[in-house]
Amino acid sequence: MAKWIWYPGSLELYHGMLLHNRRTHAKTYKNGKNSDTRSIFYHPMWRVDGPRHNAILTKEAEIFESEVIEFFSNTPDSCICVDNITYPPNSKIELGVGRHRVTVSGFKADGFPAFYCTGNVFATDRSWVVCENDDKAGRHAGDSELYSDVNDNPEIFKFSYKKVEPVSVKCEKGGVLYDFGKEIFGKITISGVPKDYDELLLSLGESYEEAIDYEMANCVVNAVLENGSFTSSSCAFRYIFIPKFSHICELFVDFEYLPLQTRGAFRCNDEMINKLWRVCEYTMLLNSREGFFDGIKRDRWVWGGDAYQSYFVNYYLANNNDIVKRTTRILRGADPITKHMNTICDYTFYWFIGIWEYYFHTGDIDFISDIYPDMLDVWAFVEKRLGDDGMYVRLPDDWVFIDWSTFDSNGPMCAEQMLLCRAYECLGMCAKLCGDDKMQARCERQVKYMIAQINQKYWCEEKGAFIDDYKSGKNNVTRHANIFALLFDYTSDARKESIVKNVIYNNKITKITTPYFEFFELDAMCRLGDFKYMTDMLHSYWGGMLELGATTVWEEFDPTKSGIEHYEMYGGKYEKSLCHAWGASPIYLLGKYALGVKPTGAGYSTFEVRPNLMCFTEFEGCVPTPSSEIHVKVSKSEVCVFADIDGGTLIVGDKKYPIKKGEWLNIKL
Amino acid sequence: MAKWIWYPGSLELYHGMLLHNRRTHAKTYKNGKNSDTRSIFYHPMWRVDGPRHNAILTKEAEIFESEVIEFFSNTPDSCICVDNITYPPNSKIELGVGRHRVTVSGFKADGFPAFYCTGNVFATDRSWVVCENDDKAGRHAGDSELYSDVNDNPEIFKFSYKKVEPVSVKCEKGGVLYDFGKEIFGKITISGVPKDYDELLLSLGESYEEAIDYEMANCVVNAVLENGSFTSSSCAFRYIFIPKFSHICELFVDFEYLPLQTRGAFRCNDEMINKLWRVCEYTMLLNSREGFFDGIKRDRWVWGGDAYQSYFVNYYLANNNDIVKRTTRILRGADPITKHMNTICDYTFYWFIGIWEYYFHTGDIDFISDIYPDMLDVWAFVEKRLGDDGMYVRLPDDWVFIDWSTFDSNGPMCAEQMLLCRAYECLGMCAKLCGDDKMQARCERQVKYMIAQINQKYWCEEKGAFIDDYKSGKNNVTRHANIFALLFDYTSDARKESIVKNVIYNNKITKITTPYFEFFELDAMCRLGDFKYMTDMLHSYWGGMLELGATTVWEEFDPTKSGIEHYEMYGGKYEKSLCHAWGASPIYLLGKYALGVKPTGAGYSTFEVRPNLMCFTEFEGCVPTPSSEIHVKVSKSEVCVFADIDGGTLIVGDKKYPIKKGEWLNIKL
Repeated sequence: MAKWIWYPGSLELYHGMLLHNRRTHAKTYKNGKNSDTRSIFYHPMWRVDGPRHNAILTKEAEIFESEVIEFFSNTPDSCICVDNITYPPNSKIELGVGRHRVTVSGFKADGFPAFYCTGNVFATDRSWVVCENDDKAGRHAGDSELYSDVNDNPEIFKFSYKKVEPVSVKCEKGGVLYDFGKEIFGKITISGVPKDYDELLLSLGESYEEAIDYEMANCVVNAVLENGSFTSSSCAFRYIFIPKFSHICELFVDFEYLPLQTRGAFRCNDEMINKLWRVCEYTMLLNSREGFFDGIKRDRWVWGGDAYQSYFVNYYLANNNDIVKRTTRILRGADPITKHMNTICDYTFYWFIGIWEYYFHTGDIDFISDIYPDMLDVWAFVEKRLGDDGMYVRLPDDWVFIDWSTFDSNGPMCAEQMLLCRAYECLGMCAKLCGDDKMQARCERQVKYMIAQINQKYWCEEKGAFIDDYKSGKNNVTRHANIFALLFDYTSDARKESIVKNVIYNNKITKITTPYFEFFELDAMCRLGDFKYMTDMLHSYWGGMLELGATTVWEEFDPTKSGIEHYEMYGGKYEKSLCHAWGASPIYLLGKYALGVKPTGAGYSTFEVRPNLMCFTEFEGCVPTPSSEIHVKVSKSEVCVFADIDGGTLIVGDKKYPIKKGEWLNIKL
Repeated sequence: MAKWIWYPGSLELYHGMLLHNRRTHAKTYKNGKNSDTRSIFYHPMWRVDGPRHNAILTKEAEIFESEVIEFFSNTPDSCICVDNITYPPNSKIELGVGRHRVTVSGFKADGFPAFYCTGNVFATDRSWVVCENDDKAGRHAGDSELYSDVNDNPEIFKFSYKKVEPVSVKCEKGGVLYDFGKEIFGKITISGVPKDYDELLLSLGESYEEAIDYEMANCVVNAVLENGSFTSSSCAFRYIFIPKFSHICELFVDFEYLPLQTRGAFRCNDEMINKLWRVCEYTMLLNSREGFFDGIKRDRWVWGGDAYQSYFVNYYLANNNDIVKRTTRILRGADPITKHMNTICDYTFYWFIGIWEYYFHTGDIDFISDIYPDMLDVWAFVEKRLGDDGMYVRLPDDWVFIDWSTFDSNGPMCAEQMLLCRAYECLGMCAKLCGDDKMQARCERQVKYMIAQINQKYWCEEKGAFIDDYKSGKNNVTRHANIFALLFDYTSDARKESIVKNVIYNNKITKITTPYFEFFELDAMCRLGDFKYMTDMLHSYWGGMLELGATTVWEEFDPTKSGIEHYEMYGGKYEKSLCHAWGASPIYLLGKYALGVKPTGAGYSTFEVRPNLMCFTEFEGCVPTPSSEIHVKVSKSEVCVFADIDGGTLIVGDKKYPIKKGEWLNIKL
């Protein structure tokens, strides 16, 4: 089956470029007596790369039956060369039995060239490679399941669309307010507007308060007249407010989304948790697009740290490989690598870890071999910037993030060393998969060295914990590096026990306040077997948002705040995102630790199911593997598991039961 | 005066991308009983880079009078930030007295963002710089004299247009033939076509034979119906043939050209030479566009070797700085540097030499400081590929060109070492201009070392000449390396004499057959004071083309051929270019050695005029300096020189006369 093909990475670089340039912010200017509210372009703070505008892709193969190939291209500036004879687009060429070499070539100034050949052996797909004169000769062509029809256009991202109408509309505060009942994303169309208008200002709000406060709202758009109705660009909102307007017009949204097949599920006796799971699912749905976004209202950007967490949620919700691969390529950008991803060093390290975790959850060796040379280029950049001791040092253009928290961060931070070390470890495992023995050995050596260095330099006996920085003399302890030490298993059991006591359960150590880092903390706690901490957080932190009517998970939540204080962030009155992917981690936590499903071999070649009732009396659900789903049903009296793949082991208490493919395994408790 | 500004290099990369993707070749297919002739896309064999689609440029300055800036952009996805407040395009902002920081930012997917601010100090121009977060922070913004009006569009190259009608039209060979009397370039418009046609096939020819042989012509285009007339894309030709057509329709060409101000001139008593000079001038005019092209019919590409020679012709014809700068940037492309320019190693070396020569002829230090960091990146690529001995070695993806000639070229070739050495020398001089002492010293050391190595390894005492390769044992002598040794002064006077005797005047050494390398040979001969060789070539080689009716200079000419044999090249019946820039060297040779004008200090800060009557009885002419022209008039009885700049010295015989600015200096002979 033919697919559209392109220079590797072009689809991702092109759509990545577009999506990173769609952010706007609203600004209100005094304009004489009146004020004028406008939506203004807001650029990313990192270099955004576009695709190559030229591509030459080739395939050489022997065929044992003749075949006819028909060549299509998305650009007239293209041609196909069959055994040294060149033909223009839309040519039909018959290939006789024997060996052939077919090359397609094209140029597209305002996008990227893409090619489609019908045929059998020579039908276009990943098996085509970059031509030998290119500096990336031999790399596999890019393709995608999304673009397998000759009428598809890879330059238009293949979203789905659904017409959605508001659940209520009313006149209010001198304007008209529409409520969609929950967060939504898409173009807005308004019809029946009196004919004296040629433009309508729409103030959008994830909250009611934001929408009506149109001079301070984060997102306003102008709907302009087009074929008799007013249409806006695509935006995220729950509420639409048309200020200084009194006509109740027909309005609908062309809901734009990527149809994620959510094969994961979780239902339990606690309705709040069930609701939360669905809210997390919907949050992920809205933020899963060309890549995994941070939030759907404000940035709509691909951030390496946010994406990294979305990957894990994805493995328990949809196990959608394509979006992980696209996100990985969007984050990397094009050559040369001159800055960290999103300029944040930790995000570059997560990128390496994320690629290994992708392989571990999917078993997709093709992607690893495709991306491996790109990993090496990034790695060359990383290594060039390390200190003489081979450890991370902070350079002036590094944004050391880790978390919105106060660290002793002027020097080289322990948390960064942990991430760097884990990145080495993951690169080494990928090197092994790609048969790069030299790199594998180098990484393994470096991991051993770094773990020793970290334990020697950053461990503070007095505090019984890892400190942020060993050079400053402050011996400052934060949770972050210590959580990584537990998650990555980078210290001795004795030190781990010390961390649990002196950091994790030590209230004097500043608490994690962002759901971003809560992901890592809760993951670590669950690994320690402390599920109560996690389920308590589900009820208090996530439950707190639901109580306030959240239809999607917020970027941050502080139960001590009230009213519109909740919407303030980064110094903006409504700057906070109320639909933020990093809050969807309960899907991952419940799937991995309640349903208890996780791969133990790459791509679920082997896996274990170790369910935990936690605070529930019963639950059931499923976890998607690359090929199907693993079903788990647990009550106080029984554990039932079903998988239609081999390699599973059910663990209940200290007993292990092999899971037979295609048969329910029921264990009475 | 404000100009449009953009990310440095974007103008050149954008137009370079477009121009390198405009080549087509014609192909005729059997289509049942009939045949179908089509124009097919022909891609360059090197990576073609596009511009960055995002740009952030900034200026910080103190102003002592308030000013109003008005901000324009070629993209709605843009904004201006004045002292931390952001405004949309078309905003007018008043800046009070004091220090300000103004930043413009934008995105354009299908081109490159460009910005224009009216104002005084903050009027946009090269004084703006790339923003600090960018990997090229601090580089000067790109601008051009071509785009100084707010209504200009830097994405549309600013050519001039003139309606030109054919000099004759007749029915012939079953079609209609139009003749323009000389080579021309532009869109063709045909009106009055009977209404049963919706497309016309036009067979274009630089020669009559090519045009009428439409199934074998190099260039055919389809003119399509548009607003009542048929229009083609822009092409080069002298003849247009519409096959299988019998209607004499109105046809004109919208001649598209860059108005080169040709400030150089040469007139003498020999009318053939005068005609040749004008033919060379016209050849240069047609090939001087976004950059210097090789030829106007076939490739229309920027090739480093061809461009290098065009630079020298330009300094004696127009001294148009902008086109040299644009060509330099087009050739370089974007980062990362992964191949030689046009994949040809000699062309990379010429690139460095060309930059120094640019400085030497123009004194434009701004461009040197702008391009210097880009030179370093190319140099890093070059050095990475050198042998352990620091000399050039041939790598598998290097195209070692030098000339269409037979060399002993498997090993490291002497001519490449000479070019590499000269590139080092020129980089070192640029490093000096930019205050990069370390690089300067390194280059100077390397030049000394390389000259010694070349003289030690490649000199063959037996042959009294430099040999192609010292490793093969063949001791093969060609003219090329020996010519470079003379031109670059890379050997002792004794060896130079030996070269002149054993190579230059040795008929057993294969003659130079291309006008491309003839440029270097004639330059060397003139330096030796042998003008006869050069003027004989003007009469025989160039004169031979004129005798055959050439209206522009050909890519190659062999007087032993006849008829359409002249048009064959690279295996194609009409593949030869009949309007090829590298044939325009007589302009350079006559200006430099007959008029005898050359700078001796950068940018004509000092210069000499050393006229030589050669075979002429009298001539007059002028040579453009960056600011004006130097006039020279010579007869058997008198030499007259005028310059309105200081620093000139007239040399007649062994006497030197200072040239007084603004006054004719007349010396009786």
